[in-house]
Amino acid sequence: MGRITARHPVTRIVVGDAERRRRADLLAVEEPLEIRVNHAQLAITMRTPGHDVELAAGFLVSEGVISRGEQLHRAMHCGGPGSGGAANTYNILEVTLASGVAAPAPELSRRFLTTSACGLCGKSSIEEIETVSRYRLAEDPAELDAAVLTTFPEQLRARQAVFDKTGGLHAAALFDADSGELLVLREDVGRHNAVDKVIGWAVLADRLPLRATVLMVSGRASFELAQKAVMAGVPMLAAVSAPSSLAVELADATGLTLVGFLRGDSMNVYTHPDRIRTDAPADHSRAS
Amino acid sequence: MGRITARHPVTRIVVGDAERRRRADLLAVEEPLEIRVNHAQLAITMRTPGHDVELAAGFLVSEGVISRGEQLHRAMHCGGPGSGGAANTYNILEVTLASGVAAPAPELSRRFLTTSACGLCGKSSIEEIETVSRYRLAEDPAELDAAVLTTFPEQLRARQAVFDKTGGLHAAALFDADSGELLVLREDVGRHNAVDKVIGWAVLADRLPLRATVLMVSGRASFELAQKAVMAGVPMLAAVSAPSSLAVELADATGLTLVGFLRGDSMNVYTHPDRIRTDAPADHSRAS
Repeated sequence: MGRITARHPVTRIVVGDAERRRRADLLAVEEPLEIRVNHAQLAITMRTPGHDVELAAGFLVSEGVISRGEQLHRAMHCGGPGSGGAANTYNILEVTLASGVAAPAPELSRRFLTTSACGLCGKSSIEEIETVSRYRLAEDPAELDAAVLTTFPEQLRARQAVFDKTGGLHAAALFDADSGELLVLREDVGRHNAVDKVIGWAVLADRLPLRATVLMVSGRASFELAQKAVMAGVPMLAAVSAPSSLAVELADATGLTLVGFLRGDSMNVYTHPDRIRTDAPADHSRAS
Repeated sequence: MGRITARHPVTRIVVGDAERRRRADLLAVEEPLEIRVNHAQLAITMRTPGHDVELAAGFLVSEGVISRGEQLHRAMHCGGPGSGGAANTYNILEVTLASGVAAPAPELSRRFLTTSACGLCGKSSIEEIETVSRYRLAEDPAELDAAVLTTFPEQLRARQAVFDKTGGLHAAALFDADSGELLVLREDVGRHNAVDKVIGWAVLADRLPLRATVLMVSGRASFELAQKAVMAGVPMLAAVSAPSSLAVELADATGLTLVGFLRGDSMNVYTHPDRIRTDAPADHSRAS
């Protein structure tokens, strides 16, 4: 439970150095988590243990299953108190939805309903999310100063408790667009898991839609991460590195402001730049 | 088909700079690929188009379905020549296995056979791979000089045709351990896809098991990447960044030499360091 680092002996080799050094190294822990919903297997993900209930809740938000904390009736690790039987590895999480909340079909069969035809493409993926999403990001009036946005990477690094020690964890954090304050940060070996944990934290606190917030990720912005932002009603996604083409297309279609290469005092704004204020006259041209 | 970059307008913002610059930016293309095997949907992955047959072939190696090129009878994009009907998006690949090759069950149900009990854990994942894998890495006598290994990151960067332009692609490359020569390099928005494309290239050329080779990846080493190396008979996996705990455990159990933080003239060797020669007396201690 919550074991996010592990020690392992490592041989340190430096070319030209006569001596091989043996020392203990800290690793980011990776373990499988099976998420069961109403007793059916929904997904297995390789994740860093800890915040598993948030991870499952955020995953269910991304999949369009829940949007309020009360819709998740109960979540417990298999083999928890009173269950007896096999040893609890804390790697299976049993989720029970509140009555009236429709359980999802198994992951693989639910997604990409268009696949019986030959036309599977990014566009159909975007249309599916536009259909399923509860929130209209284009209506979110969130704005913030570019100068505030550029403080986020440093805030993220300062709060990353583990990253500097293992170098193996991705981080995701949610910021208040008005105050620039960091609301929550989660780390994981999988970037999608870190984002699910952040969104799970929010849905369990009944904070969806996440209006006037910025989701910041330590790496790149893929379609999947943009999808998770859209499904949670986050109007702005910022990444330290590059976005993919499909992440940009999804952001463009849904009203999500997508920022990449947020480093130092600069950034690239791929979609909906009007939410970012600068001293300069606003640029009202929109990304195509 | 093979469209790995796309242009998109971007607004460049620099704090304190009065001017917002609009310019075209190159993005790494991300599109879904559905892999069908013998007419059944096996998996959908978000990938960078190009080398799709290699991607599917490598995926099938990782899953233990094939180990020789001839076991893959045919692979074509849905809607290819003569099929008529819907427009071809080149995002659905139909794979037909040679007769006598057992088709895989759907991905989700095949994996993690232990999940009916409560004991899902990294250890069971490792045991499953030890059972399914055809190759015994511990018997591979591959060795190479640390000084040769430290040339790989630069070789990888030099050959990365796209990375510098988009910043959004992961790279995987296979090196000959004896000559230090780069054999093949593939790039993708998904690191697992880049590795699948490399291994697919190898299986289609009937080069499995990949004895006396090193698989090098541009990012971190997760359990999934270590699994792919083991299933293809690669005795050494090297990463620019950190490995996860479960990647190290799998490498330790299967005889895979796992190198992390391969940067400049140094590296961390997490498991089976005897394969790496230095001028110093060899360290015969093994990772636990």
